[in-house]
Amino acid sequence: MRVIVDVAIIPIGVGLSLSRYVAACEQVFSAAGLEPTLHANGTNVEGRWDEVMGAVKRCHEVLHEMGAPRVATNVRIGTRIDREQTMADKLESVRTKVGQ
Amino acid sequence: MRVIVDVAIIPIGVGLSLSRYVAACEQVFSAAGLEPTLHANGTNVEGRWDEVMGAVKRCHEVLHEMGAPRVATNVRIGTRIDREQTMADKLESVRTKVGQ
Amino acid sequence: MRVIVDVAIIPIGVGLSLSRYVAACEQVFSAAGLEPTLHANGTNVEGRWDEVMGAVKRCHEVLHEMGAPRVATNVRIGTRIDREQTMADKLESVRTKVGQ
Amino acid sequence: MRVIVDVAIIPIGVGLSLSRYVAACEQVFSAAGLEPTLHANGTNVEGRWDEVMGAVKRCHEVLHEMGAPRVATNVRIGTRIDREQTMADKLESVRTKVGQ
Repeated sequence: MRVIVDVAIIPIGVGLSLSRYVAACEQVFSAAGLEPTLHANGTNVEGRWDEVMGAVKRCHEVLHEMGAPRVATNVRIGTRIDREQTMADKLESVRTKVGQ
Repeated sequence: MRVIVDVAIIPIGVGLSLSRYVAACEQVFSAAGLEPTLHANGTNVEGRWDEVMGAVKRCHEVLHEMGAPRVATNVRIGTRIDREQTMADKLESVRTKVGQ
Repeated sequence: MRVIVDVAIIPIGVGLSLSRYVAACEQVFSAAGLEPTLHANGTNVEGRWDEVMGAVKRCHEVLHEMGAPRVATNVRIGTRIDREQTMADKLESVRTKVGQ
Repeated sequence: MRVIVDVAIIPIGVGLSLSRYVAACEQVFSAAGLEPTLHANGTNVEGRWDEVMGAVKRCHEVLHEMGAPRVATNVRIGTRIDREQTMADKLESVRTKVGQ
């Protein structure tokens, strides 16, 4: 099952600057062979369920290893079986309509 | 790694009444030996990461099998390594303070 | 427009114990005449859009006043115009089906 | 109070193709003088709380006017008072660290 996911990760108990942790999670996705697309409030990733969600788990583990005692993540997960759809397809589909 | 999770699942393309699908997902959690706590906007579950997130995956699969072409889920995932904390602990901790 | 909302609020930069802040937000909702229902991963509230979302704004303000330099909230907002539906209706609707 | 927001809107009961509705919400943000940044799983917007959240409300209204009986939105809201930070700052801050 393929999945399109949006991940927003917040380490708790490490102060105010979170970017180092978000960057570490980006690198987890890349190391997993995924191609994360960072945006201002999260990261988009697509792929097979187990790979993508396995990388999300790895993000929690890595942030804990970096010293975050607590990690809170908000994940939007989308799956569909009617047809194949990539993140690029989704974007294109909206953009054509905004342009009208 | 233990996890406390909040799952809000939305089947898309099946009309307006979603409760049948939410109920099916509840049963997935129960069948997995988890004890889901339903609330008005989602379901709380706790347990080991792989069990809980495996059940979330199974929810997507089951909803697709029930005829939902598309499924969108919002998941809040919390992990902590400083101490053990259950959902009951979290609730109790806030409730004592609200009562002050 | 009536709304059913689920609010999960995370103060950032105040250490690990967040319950005092969640409790303060509960009290904001109550003070606004709303009847929040706390769960392990957030709070459910229903009412008119402006009242509910005004209280969410007030939660951010209050947490900043309490010393949180940064506040991150995840809100699920549901509106419907086909019929009136309360949080109790939503719960009941799922519960009958789980029981089947 | 300034806010950085991520909005993922799902009209329910209108079938499988949601892009027309997402596009309409984009136009609501633009019409409000905001500069939405679309991504594969939502839209980033920043500005004053009342303007941004007022536009989110308007999105629900517009989608209902377009025929969606039910609308579910997931919003991530971030505020901070320690310093000014734009969406561009947030992105830059992570990107420098990923590049290390």
